[in-house]
Amino acid sequence: MKSVMPFVQLGAHRVPTSTDARLHAATALRILGLEDAAWADLARTHHLPDEPRDFGAGPEATLSLQDFLRVAVTTPTRQGRAWQARALDTLARALSGDVHLAADIAERNPSPQERHWLSARLENAEARKSLMNAIARSGGSGAVFGQIGSVSNRSVLGTDSATIRRERGVKHTRDGLTTGELMRLTYLETLTARDLDAGRAHGNDAILDLHRRNAQRERLAWDHTQPTAPVLQQRAS
Amino acid sequence: MKSVMPFVQLGAHRVPTSTDARLHAATALRILGLEDAAWADLARTHHLPDEPRDFGAGPEATLSLQDFLRVAVTTPTRQGRAWQARALDTLARALSGDVHLAADIAERNPSPQERHWLSARLENAEARKSLMNAIARSGGSGAVFGQIGSVSNRSVLGTDSATIRRERGVKHTRDGLTTGELMRLTYLETLTARDLDAGRAHGNDAILDLHRRNAQRERLAWDHTQPTAPVLQQRAS
Repeated sequence: MKSVMPFVQLGAHRVPTSTDARLHAATALRILGLEDAAWADLARTHHLPDEPRDFGAGPEATLSLQDFLRVAVTTPTRQGRAWQARALDTLARALSGDVHLAADIAERNPSPQERHWLSARLENAEARKSLMNAIARSGGSGAVFGQIGSVSNRSVLGTDSATIRRERGVKHTRDGLTTGELMRLTYLETLTARDLDAGRAHGNDAILDLHRRNAQRERLAWDHTQPTAPVLQQRAS
Repeated sequence: MKSVMPFVQLGAHRVPTSTDARLHAATALRILGLEDAAWADLARTHHLPDEPRDFGAGPEATLSLQDFLRVAVTTPTRQGRAWQARALDTLARALSGDVHLAADIAERNPSPQERHWLSARLENAEARKSLMNAIARSGGSGAVFGQIGSVSNRSVLGTDSATIRRERGVKHTRDGLTTGELMRLTYLETLTARDLDAGRAHGNDAILDLHRRNAQRERLAWDHTQPTAPVLQQRAS
């Protein structure tokens, strides 16, 4: 039986990883231009834990991805300096919202379900923005922008966002939602945006009323169906 | 007239930026727990260029996002250390393909067109994967996997991927494609995957032949229409 060794791609290199995602230390060090013999010193200097794993040739030293990066950003070799430059570049691109970087990160994720979750998350963000614009064009102002989200959450999630964050252990509500929940929110908020753009409500009270009725309709449609398919219950880990 | 000052969100802080995206140095330094007076020393130590910009109170010192990060990762204050920890965490998440990070980055991008490009890019990657699986299930092997992509590129882009990379100055072909080109490739490759799953070709030659015919059909459909709408001509910068 042929089995594929898991790995993480670091620049041009594939570093073997253990089943619990620890890097094969000797390969990782070579990427930084360090000899195998450097391991003992590095482990002492950086307080690296002793966590050997078996990659097929008996127990060998490993390090976590975080520890590799911690070592990389202080390694004064040519390769280490290249890692430092690349790290600053990646951070700057992340902070400036580089969609190419976002695409690269998504494509590193081996799980089709998690990549599907990302698409649902992005769709949801766009639908939310479109709804907010439609509300503003329909004479909505102030509290209505928050209240609309509360109506959506209570209808689709059955509770408020603070409870979701606490129960699911996430900092931002939408990070804790399943693909199916995101899709339902996208649908509901798109429905209300469409109705607002058709001139079917004006002012905070009418907008909220319209959205509550749409939420009820969506719930009726959804609860009518069979139990949710497994793919829709997926949350990104 | 009220104008909105551009800014970049750094952790919990909004740092004003110039129209050419340079950070207001005094605000940026405060985030690192440094006094305004630290600027002169920092500029010398880190060889920061003297690039004052006017934020409404006359010329003031600025630094690029890259330079801010370069300073941040070596600043020995409590805030500096927090930045260092966060930087390592972000890099580890990027390397391990964290879709939450990808979503956060996408939402930092203020351009709906660029966010739309990202969605098209992700769809395209999924369509390409589905096609490759369909080819394998249809008895395709070896060279056909690359040849299929060449047929797609030649049909939709009018040239090969090496030329695209050179002409558009990108390292990876798909980073250089417009939203419209990505959408057409997604369509074409989904079409062929569907036909393969319906058992309409078996083996390398038949698969390539089927794909060439689909490419021709798609081109006829596309070229029949009016010139491309501006949104589809967008490339992510």
